[in-house]
Amino acid sequence: MVKVRLSELVERFGGQLMGDPNIELFGIAPLISAQASHITFLSNSKLRSQAEQTQAAALILSASDNALLADMAYRGARVVTSNPYAYFARVAQFFLDQSTLPVKPGIHPSASVDPSANIASTATIGPHVTIEADVLVADRCVIDAGSFIGRGAVVGADTHFFANVTFHAACEIGQRGIIHSGAVIGSDGFGFANEGGVWIKIPQTGRVVIGNDVDIGANTSIDRGALEDTVIEDGVKLDNQIQIGHNCHIGAHTAMAGCVGVAGSAKIGKYCTFGGAAMVLGHLTIADHVHISSASMVSRSILEAGQYTGFYPLAKNAEWEKSAAIVRNLGVMREKIRSLEKIIKSFVK
Amino acid sequence: MVKVRLSELVERFGGQLMGDPNIELFGIAPLISAQASHITFLSNSKLRSQAEQTQAAALILSASDNALLADMAYRGARVVTSNPYAYFARVAQFFLDQSTLPVKPGIHPSASVDPSANIASTATIGPHVTIEADVLVADRCVIDAGSFIGRGAVVGADTHFFANVTFHAACEIGQRGIIHSGAVIGSDGFGFANEGGVWIKIPQTGRVVIGNDVDIGANTSIDRGALEDTVIEDGVKLDNQIQIGHNCHIGAHTAMAGCVGVAGSAKIGKYCTFGGAAMVLGHLTIADHVHISSASMVSRSILEAGQYTGFYPLAKNAEWEKSAAIVRNLGVMREKIRSLEKIIKSFVK
Amino acid sequence: MVKVRLSELVERFGGQLMGDPNIELFGIAPLISAQASHITFLSNSKLRSQAEQTQAAALILSASDNALLADMAYRGARVVTSNPYAYFARVAQFFLDQSTLPVKPGIHPSASVDPSANIASTATIGPHVTIEADVLVADRCVIDAGSFIGRGAVVGADTHFFANVTFHAACEIGQRGIIHSGAVIGSDGFGFANEGGVWIKIPQTGRVVIGNDVDIGANTSIDRGALEDTVIEDGVKLDNQIQIGHNCHIGAHTAMAGCVGVAGSAKIGKYCTFGGAAMVLGHLTIADHVHISSASMVSRSILEAGQYTGFYPLAKNAEWEKSAAIVRNLGVMREKIRSLEKIIKSFVK
Repeated sequence: MVKVRLSELVERFGGQLMGDPNIELFGIAPLISAQASHITFLSNSKLRSQAEQTQAAALILSASDNALLADMAYRGARVVTSNPYAYFARVAQFFLDQSTLPVKPGIHPSASVDPSANIASTATIGPHVTIEADVLVADRCVIDAGSFIGRGAVVGADTHFFANVTFHAACEIGQRGIIHSGAVIGSDGFGFANEGGVWIKIPQTGRVVIGNDVDIGANTSIDRGALEDTVIEDGVKLDNQIQIGHNCHIGAHTAMAGCVGVAGSAKIGKYCTFGGAAMVLGHLTIADHVHISSASMVSRSILEAGQYTGFYPLAKNAEWEKSAAIVRNLGVMREKIRSLEKIIKSFVK
Repeated sequence: MVKVRLSELVERFGGQLMGDPNIELFGIAPLISAQASHITFLSNSKLRSQAEQTQAAALILSASDNALLADMAYRGARVVTSNPYAYFARVAQFFLDQSTLPVKPGIHPSASVDPSANIASTATIGPHVTIEADVLVADRCVIDAGSFIGRGAVVGADTHFFANVTFHAACEIGQRGIIHSGAVIGSDGFGFANEGGVWIKIPQTGRVVIGNDVDIGANTSIDRGALEDTVIEDGVKLDNQIQIGHNCHIGAHTAMAGCVGVAGSAKIGKYCTFGGAAMVLGHLTIADHVHISSASMVSRSILEAGQYTGFYPLAKNAEWEKSAAIVRNLGVMREKIRSLEKIIKSFVK
Repeated sequence: MVKVRLSELVERFGGQLMGDPNIELFGIAPLISAQASHITFLSNSKLRSQAEQTQAAALILSASDNALLADMAYRGARVVTSNPYAYFARVAQFFLDQSTLPVKPGIHPSASVDPSANIASTATIGPHVTIEADVLVADRCVIDAGSFIGRGAVVGADTHFFANVTFHAACEIGQRGIIHSGAVIGSDGFGFANEGGVWIKIPQTGRVVIGNDVDIGANTSIDRGALEDTVIEDGVKLDNQIQIGHNCHIGAHTAMAGCVGVAGSAKIGKYCTFGGAAMVLGHLTIADHVHISSASMVSRSILEAGQYTGFYPLAKNAEWEKSAAIVRNLGVMREKIRSLEKIIKSFVK
């Protein structure tokens, strides 16, 4: 465990320090479980009462919460910042870096690396990795065990592939990327011409081109483009079990939760969010700052920012049976109302 | 093919034997396809007429079915038991064990095993497996080709990883577990702080802790906890293509069918079942003995046992177009009814 | 880049050539981006105006579009064919084959191949591949890095496994198949008997049997049968992230888009299509030529060909909140209408 002075953290990450700058800290923990050697954070104002009772030596909080809690029992140090949750993220990463064992650069003897591949001397290539011809792996990359990088692919500096990633030929990822285990980047898009009922494969000759600071979750797959490229812009965050079809374009800083599916050629804006298992049909356009709720199906383009939802509300099974039966026959209900309206109209006139 | 006397099966698995104990059996088969050397089972009373005509030498059935079928044409032996389907499962496993080739313990020469790892001498480590430092693999484990076990992970006795499993650092699984190919255990949870539209990664330093007798399906992923652990209790059965978010807690003997998604920090009770593609939002609580139907979205906590459902009923496309258009405008329909009620009220008074 | 005369293409793929047969072509491109050395195609009549302005040296189109465009500005050669999109697929594959580097047959020294396996001398086995006993890999197969083929499995001629495929014991695939990375074929089906709340595993001893010309997407999983086989007939095309349960039977030339789930023992006809994330319950029968829309849940057998749909329409979140609340209480609305009908009836009579 590495000790860090509070003043060092504030020098590094900013914020206004109130209290003893010489407090020594070992780590970060939630309000309730934090001990005397921890720094903690209040990012959700509903937890203010927990903040009053935390055992932590230092507390990260917003100016407004700091004002509201001016008189509270808590007597430790405070770090006032505009975004306590982001501050927490950075401090947590800092402590993690202190305790993480250094990775030894070099190529594991069991890896299979084509002589034409260009592997930075600061990169780490794990056991049973396969790297084909003309691949570029830049500085400080870590490619874990069993991963595959196809011919001519490019991996930007400081990018990390966890074990058993598949990154196909000619695809590119920028700097500081993370690809989790089981992810497949650059598989063929699902493109077929139908001739008398039989499917004829359309070759998929585009690439997947991924920007900087992109995270891709476990067992997620992103198809290569058909004639052009599939594009994932900077800062996109994809969770696990996601499917991105060929020729999609996902704008910068958009985030998708697990099990989302995006069909081919969809164009998705920047700063969007998608709840888990949301689905997007092919060839749609989605504007910037659109937020799709979980389990919702996007079947038309969305050109206006906002939150959109579409899932059937859960109910006890017996109640659902009833409501679903009516939904199936809503046309009948509408007709009844119309005929009632007609009758009443004849009365009223 | 190994021959087994019926009396041996009954000694081993219980039940009341009626008929010749010396019948020799080669295997178990369904009612219709069973031959004279087979034992068969009647677990679904709707198939009673098939039982009357089965060619099997022996029939596993319940006391009630046995009474109803007292006079049937079938003249083979009978094994009466309270749960014929469970009896079938055990007998099928017994025959499979007889015919399965023994696995040779030892570490394949192509495997990459850190010297500090503790591998039981009775365990089997397949080709191209990677095992990092300080891992514990207990007695009689089988780790198939291409699997990865990260630093400090613990694998309990008699656990089987099929080919190409990824089991990340510090995670634990108990005894008699099965993890199918492509599964990823211990990938980072999807945790980010948003700062001016940009996502800042929150380190995921918890583990995945899995109990005894847990099965995990192909290409399923379970994220490690953020600050605390993701927990899967004893006897949980997860099918393929499932996503379990960070910090989830799944109670003992809960079963989930394929394509289920559970968002982070959900607390799910014991003895629950989830139909295929059911989805659970984050931070919800689900009581014991809750059953969620397929393709249903759980958007609120469920504190009462029972069966819950929520999916849009399928219809011919033209009918769906009509009902979906009305669903979109149900508010209008409600207003019409209200105004009809008002008019009628004015008439009636 | 390989040059090909237009006459050579027409000799190979048919169609009626109008214009200079000696034009030399380097590749195929969309109407808009095609250059003077390209052939292009008009498969969607809405793009006729693009065809008028294309720079391509040759244009593939239908007889009807050719008639409508008889007088257009475009002065290049034309190839008239009944199915321009299928013609495009074949020409694109032809150009791709010209530029693809030849694969060198042979077994990579890092592969682990059981001596009893029968590997065709024309097959290519990549790095870190594992092939168990008694496997058959037929002529011209390509098995990419990290893939696993279990004991006794059969891989037909000209079949390609991309990197990190898992193909389990005793399973079979026919000729000209493609399996993408991360796919798992032959994992255990999800079969358990429940005994007092505890799940007892039912051994899964069937196989997966796959016909000719089948494509299987990245991270898709297909379970082996319980007692009998899971069957995928000729020409089936499965996209990524699909789950096929044990004992399913999928008819010839059926295509499924990404994230589809099919529960166990479903029998699906020929020439069907499934939109992304469609779900099918177990033990159902679906006729030939059935088309299921995306995100739709099939909860009953479908015995009549046609298009079927069932998903909740997307709306702005506030509107959805309103409509979902009414859907939950549709029974109340129905009662109100009934009582209005009664009152009015009493007036009218």
